[in-house]
Amino acid sequence: MINVVKIGGNVIDSPTAIDKFLSDFAGMQGRKVLVHGGGKLATSLASGLGIETCMVKGRRVTSPEMLDVCLMVYAGLINKRMVAGLSSRGCATIGLSGADGMVVKAVRRPKEPVDYGEVGDVVGVNARLLANLLDAGLTPVICAITCDAEGNLLNTNADTIASEVAVALSGLEKTTLTYCFEKRGVLRDVTDPDSVISEITEVTFPELKRGGVIADGMLPKIENSLGAVGRGVNQVLIKCSEELTDMASGTHIK
Amino acid sequence: MINVVKIGGNVIDSPTAIDKFLSDFAGMQGRKVLVHGGGKLATSLASGLGIETCMVKGRRVTSPEMLDVCLMVYAGLINKRMVAGLSSRGCATIGLSGADGMVVKAVRRPKEPVDYGEVGDVVGVNARLLANLLDAGLTPVICAITCDAEGNLLNTNADTIASEVAVALSGLEKTTLTYCFEKRGVLRDVTDPDSVISEITEVTFPELKRGGVIADGMLPKIENSLGAVGRGVNQVLIKCSEELTDMASGTHIK
Repeated sequence: MINVVKIGGNVIDSPTAIDKFLSDFAGMQGRKVLVHGGGKLATSLASGLGIETCMVKGRRVTSPEMLDVCLMVYAGLINKRMVAGLSSRGCATIGLSGADGMVVKAVRRPKEPVDYGEVGDVVGVNARLLANLLDAGLTPVICAITCDAEGNLLNTNADTIASEVAVALSGLEKTTLTYCFEKRGVLRDVTDPDSVISEITEVTFPELKRGGVIADGMLPKIENSLGAVGRGVNQVLIKCSEELTDMASGTHIK
Repeated sequence: MINVVKIGGNVIDSPTAIDKFLSDFAGMQGRKVLVHGGGKLATSLASGLGIETCMVKGRRVTSPEMLDVCLMVYAGLINKRMVAGLSSRGCATIGLSGADGMVVKAVRRPKEPVDYGEVGDVVGVNARLLANLLDAGLTPVICAITCDAEGNLLNTNADTIASEVAVALSGLEKTTLTYCFEKRGVLRDVTDPDSVISEITEVTFPELKRGGVIADGMLPKIENSLGAVGRGVNQVLIKCSEELTDMASGTHIK
């Protein structure tokens, strides 16, 4: 049984939230993998260096200069802080980008219809290497950088990396995927933090979608989650980072 | 037989020199480990961010802000570029800081007589992990960041990391340590690039030192090299990065 946990940017941006999360994650029993996003640090470093942030259709375009910033912040600063923070809590970890052992291989996203620049789409996960590291007692901590066969480093969505890693590991062992963020789960009413939908399935999702209960950014997340379950992941959980160890909490996608 | 190769900052700063080096290193037969320093990128990023560089007795003081810059540049930008560059040349690599798998454990340098800030002295190398990675067909690429038992990340001299890694691996397997830089070796006459001293031993070093042939920055390098040989390393080579694959080139320390 492997737990793949993805931690979002808003949690990473909060020193108290990330501290509690790292302690809880370090204490989780069993084999586990952490995938992390970026947070606001990349944006603030870019602005400090005078690099403009360009958005197309609500998504960031990654220029070569912005890719360097992402490499520095995701693979350098955040990844190593997490590795060190988990190590000091007794959780032996190894930090990885997709380029390390080609653990998450990607292809550059086509330039049509929109050129997002140095952005990659995942085409393969080296599950054998992850299993080797887990066998050696190490918890892989993966940042949102991938690499193509020509050695181009690419910025890649951390949610996608987490689900592709979970699907690949499912081929070896029963695997659960947990998305941790600042809310308590998928909410029936966005104004009520306690209105968590406890379970979503292929059967209930279309109704929730039709009724407009699930909309906007949550739609692709649920679609990805149902896709991961369809491709072998045992269960997907969407929950608050502060409730990581409470197995009943959050939204369960089966 | 393991080759531990350290590549210096001046080579990293030159796009053509680093390209040739990566091709030569990727083509080297057998088990190998790469250790890299930083180069001028950290200094230029720090200055771009308005972080002052403070030197004491010719050595850089690492403030917490400067440590973040080092994490970003060494563990992020340079390490991942090298990993991707070697991967695309057919050399499967895994990038590491000392915190990853606690592969290079350090203690914070004492604040007396000079407080160098967030700087670490190596106290242990996880040779078992390096051997595991080598057994898995991966070449470790280690940057000049270490970690103490409390999870503090620390800036650390790359030459020292390379020699401590080589000494630790010598306990498992015959190991050679190669320092690559922009000169052809230890020079008898600094104004003549071809005046390479082909061999230095415990017997010849005191004479060279007394005669002033070896002085300044080269003294600690040779002392460290002789120390590494005394602690089990088969041979230390000091040579030009462009002559990596020419086994007769450079200065041989035995």
